[in-house]
Amino acid sequence: MERITSVPGSTYFYYPRLVCVVGVLDQAKETCNFAPVAWATPLSSAPPLYGVCLSPRTYTHKLVLQAGEFTINFMAHDDAGIVAAMGKLSGRLTDKVKELGLALDPPDALRTPTLARAYASAECLLVARHQLGDQTLFAGEVHSIRHRPEAFDEAGVLRPERVAPLLYLGAGRYLSADPASVVSPAGTG
Amino acid sequence: MERITSVPGSTYFYYPRLVCVVGVLDQAKETCNFAPVAWATPLSSAPPLYGVCLSPRTYTHKLVLQAGEFTINFMAHDDAGIVAAMGKLSGRLTDKVKELGLALDPPDALRTPTLARAYASAECLLVARHQLGDQTLFAGEVHSIRHRPEAFDEAGVLRPERVAPLLYLGAGRYLSADPASVVSPAGTG
Repeated sequence: MERITSVPGSTYFYYPRLVCVVGVLDQAKETCNFAPVAWATPLSSAPPLYGVCLSPRTYTHKLVLQAGEFTINFMAHDDAGIVAAMGKLSGRLTDKVKELGLALDPPDALRTPTLARAYASAECLLVARHQLGDQTLFAGEVHSIRHRPEAFDEAGVLRPERVAPLLYLGAGRYLSADPASVVSPAGTG
Repeated sequence: MERITSVPGSTYFYYPRLVCVVGVLDQAKETCNFAPVAWATPLSSAPPLYGVCLSPRTYTHKLVLQAGEFTINFMAHDDAGIVAAMGKLSGRLTDKVKELGLALDPPDALRTPTLARAYASAECLLVARHQLGDQTLFAGEVHSIRHRPEAFDEAGVLRPERVAPLLYLGAGRYLSADPASVVSPAGTG
């Protein structure tokens, strides 16, 4: 159990992380752009806020500022290839919806479509943004959720034996959760 | 693939998430408090920033404001029980280090110890905080990392076949990653 010391930047200690695909309207091109983000987190329960980190150098960052809203889309492990392709292509140069043949669901509450193949999606209205180092944290208020009915149990908890969520491991590698490893330690829940 | 619509708060669509145990000095009690947090994310590469969300009602929130720094500690799946116990006990009433018999490693760069059993830990200096809904996002600059040497490969990427990271699924349930599911889609990395 002896541990060694290393410097920041040398170790991706914070992975694996659930991949969040950010969808945002590209009004000039009359399409929607989708970009995978691993640096994202729920921020608040009431109101329900979800935050995504984007570099100011990205096209997605510019589009979120213009649109004032975005969607978040959670994909199954089977979609690792399509998610990697979304991250590789630039929305500046490519209409990813056409290029990747993405099927969209219409929005329920706001204006931005969601990815039909996502096991869960949410529509978020941009309510705050903070510059933190080399990224901007965009905080969106969740207005509506769309999900595959079999993906979550009656308590709203993911069923990993039904849906294998896509996690990012770093360095272009992805993996999923192990449904056989679920435990409920005493005294919680 | 038909999806249904639900309202915010009904579905924990954002899990599973890597558990981050926040360590913070309790100077009055001459101990260190440890609390598991699932709402946490890297925020920036340069400088390296990591953010954790804490409710202003928690004892840990008060301690972070007092100390001006904290550590983050990433645990193996085997530690689900001890992590659940950390979440159940209150640092207001209990010295969790004594109660749970936690072995600590001394800090390398700042003043706050890390959990010796964590496969990776980092020392963070508080550099910003933002109130976002019912939580405060504390942003810490990573000053030093300690990790088990076998946990990460030469690129600094977690070896899930060596270390089973502890992920939170919601409703008191935990699980881990599936090392057999690692994929590297073409064109990434």
